Amino acid sequence: MIPTIYLEEDRVCILNQNLLPARVEYERAANYKELMVAIKELKVRGAPLIGVTAAYGIALAMENYSGDKGDLTDYFNNAAGEFASTRPTAVNLFWAIERMKKVFEANPNVDLKYLRERLWAEAKIICAEDINNNMLIGENGQKLFPPQARILTICNAGALATCGYGTALGVIRSAHKHNKVRQVWVCETRPVLQGARLTVWELVEEKIPVSLITDSMAAFVMQQGKVDLVVTGADRIAANGDAANKIGTYGLAVLAQYHRIPFYIAAPFSTIDLNIPSGEMIKIEERDQEEVRRIGGNYITLPDVNVYNPAFDITPAQLITGIITEAGVVEPPFREGLLRIKGM
Amino acid sequence: MIPTIYLEEDRVCILNQNLLPARVEYERAANYKELMVAIKELKVRGAPLIGVTAAYGIALAMENYSGDKGDLTDYFNNAAGEFASTRPTAVNLFWAIERMKKVFEANPNVDLKYLRERLWAEAKIICAEDINNNMLIGENGQKLFPPQARILTICNAGALATCGYGTALGVIRSAHKHNKVRQVWVCETRPVLQGARLTVWELVEEKIPVSLITDSMAAFVMQQGKVDLVVTGADRIAANGDAANKIGTYGLAVLAQYHRIPFYIAAPFSTIDLNIPSGEMIKIEERDQEEVRRIGGNYITLPDVNVYNPAFDITPAQLITGIITEAGVVEPPFREGLLRIKGM
Repeated sequence: MIPTIYLEEDRVCILNQNLLPARVEYERAANYKELMVAIKELKVRGAPLIGVTAAYGIALAMENYSGDKGDLTDYFNNAAGEFASTRPTAVNLFWAIERMKKVFEANPNVDLKYLRERLWAEAKIICAEDINNNMLIGENGQKLFPPQARILTICNAGALATCGYGTALGVIRSAHKHNKVRQVWVCETRPVLQGARLTVWELVEEKIPVSLITDSMAAFVMQQGKVDLVVTGADRIAANGDAANKIGTYGLAVLAQYHRIPFYIAAPFSTIDLNIPSGEMIKIEERDQEEVRRIGGNYITLPDVNVYNPAFDITPAQLITGIITEAGVVEPPFREGLLRIKGM
Repeated sequence: MIPTIYLEEDRVCILNQNLLPARVEYERAANYKELMVAIKELKVRGAPLIGVTAAYGIALAMENYSGDKGDLTDYFNNAAGEFASTRPTAVNLFWAIERMKKVFEANPNVDLKYLRERLWAEAKIICAEDINNNMLIGENGQKLFPPQARILTICNAGALATCGYGTALGVIRSAHKHNKVRQVWVCETRPVLQGARLTVWELVEEKIPVSLITDSMAAFVMQQGKVDLVVTGADRIAANGDAANKIGTYGLAVLAQYHRIPFYIAAPFSTIDLNIPSGEMIKIEERDQEEVRRIGGNYITLPDVNVYNPAFDITPAQLITGIITEAGVVEPPFREGLLRIKGM
């Protein structure tokens, strides 16, 4: 399994996912600011991986600290704040930052070397837990699959979106191990093409049968009776079960309901945000218009045409058949179920 | 208004739409085979324009005829058959070929020069009628628009899909003249990006407010209450009102119904095929997998991944609010209405 992020002598190395699938290249961050930029520019992406990258980044920031940079606490909070400002939607980012903050606050008046070790250790734990959770999500989710399942997914909720194994793709991976996967329909996922670039690559590596389609073809393959279930990841799940995920997910959920196809979300606890009662309160990131206007550097339209580029949408709970977590599958009504498993 | 096809001394010139919007270039066909290739390669596209191009192409084929090419009737039928084999879905192609055949058959034993003139004249008439019909479609359709309408469309059913003015875009053009258009949402229309490349270009030329979105964003803008109606063209309409159009149209129709947004098809009589009772009998063209794998010549995915590339889908009649034709708007039940206007 190819790692998305790893440590090399207390320096953080990331797989630059913008170059996939043409090139597999790692970058070693010279300082924490480079990791912030890597998150903003989607070199690392996927809700769980964004969280882990921020955790490593905060540890790296402390490594970059020298006394002349002012008060340690101010410096820590500033770095944490900078990571929090990179992307607004995925709650795993804020959750991971919060975990790092707790470690920092639990270790006042200690030797800086010891504090740094504790922070590196916490980031490593978050990463290791992520892989473990994904394998549990996979095992829980695969039980929902019929034999010879034809699955449709969007974006990349795979090993590349996490520290390994993946959430939605983890479920597909587990189902494949149980010989339950006949075919995976991968929506290309415009504008950034994570489906075409990343999910296709992962599935081909695993020798799982895959068919790439444009996002606009999903309705047609559903209409033809060629989809047994839809499974996607999530970037934030509200207390009532409303789920933010890659733009296009909401449309798939409406289409799935219309065609009576089960629609599942696969995500770890860290994606569930009980602080917000419903999806209406989730901030949707709007990204650069150039992401839509250009593909591979070339304009596909007039260079100055007005573009709307929301990166996520909200799927209301009533369109979701179940939420697959490391503790099991939560079914509607979600509020009670999510509260129960988050309390575990 | 920029022409899509015109005659220059009995030679057919076409606008190569594959180069838009970056370059506006015309090609003069050396012979009818080049026009066939132009249709296959989407240099000319759009159901009405495909029909007109075939009509001109058949006239050009007769111009290319010399006695040593065998019997005239065989030669004519062969050329007509070649055009009929270029693309399977748009019925306007077969309709236009049929009109040319009738002229040929009505003129047996005539001077070849006279026959050629008659065929050129018929092709010109088909083209002129097309523009006239589109203006009627536009005027009939704009009456359906509320004030300050926000319209969503897919692909290009504009001047570029016809001999001028357009069908779905003709309706928007007419509504704009009546000051009824607040904004047009243009779906980029993967894989060939006719929305991003062609519709954006036409609307910007006309100074109609436009926002480009990826196909996957349509559901989200509908959810936000930012769409008052959807209008698209069609490539073939069955006797019961089922309509074939660009892949992605069916999904938009499902989404429109879910959000209680009216969904209209704009098309001339020549798109209505009373010979087929329902959409199930419409042949859906599957195009080259490379259309999805590559954008602007560059691979966006693994070069050998399996791709499914249907070029069209079928929107069932029950999802269509009305069909806008040159004789007026046909409302459900469509069978009676379509029969009535086709008989006019």
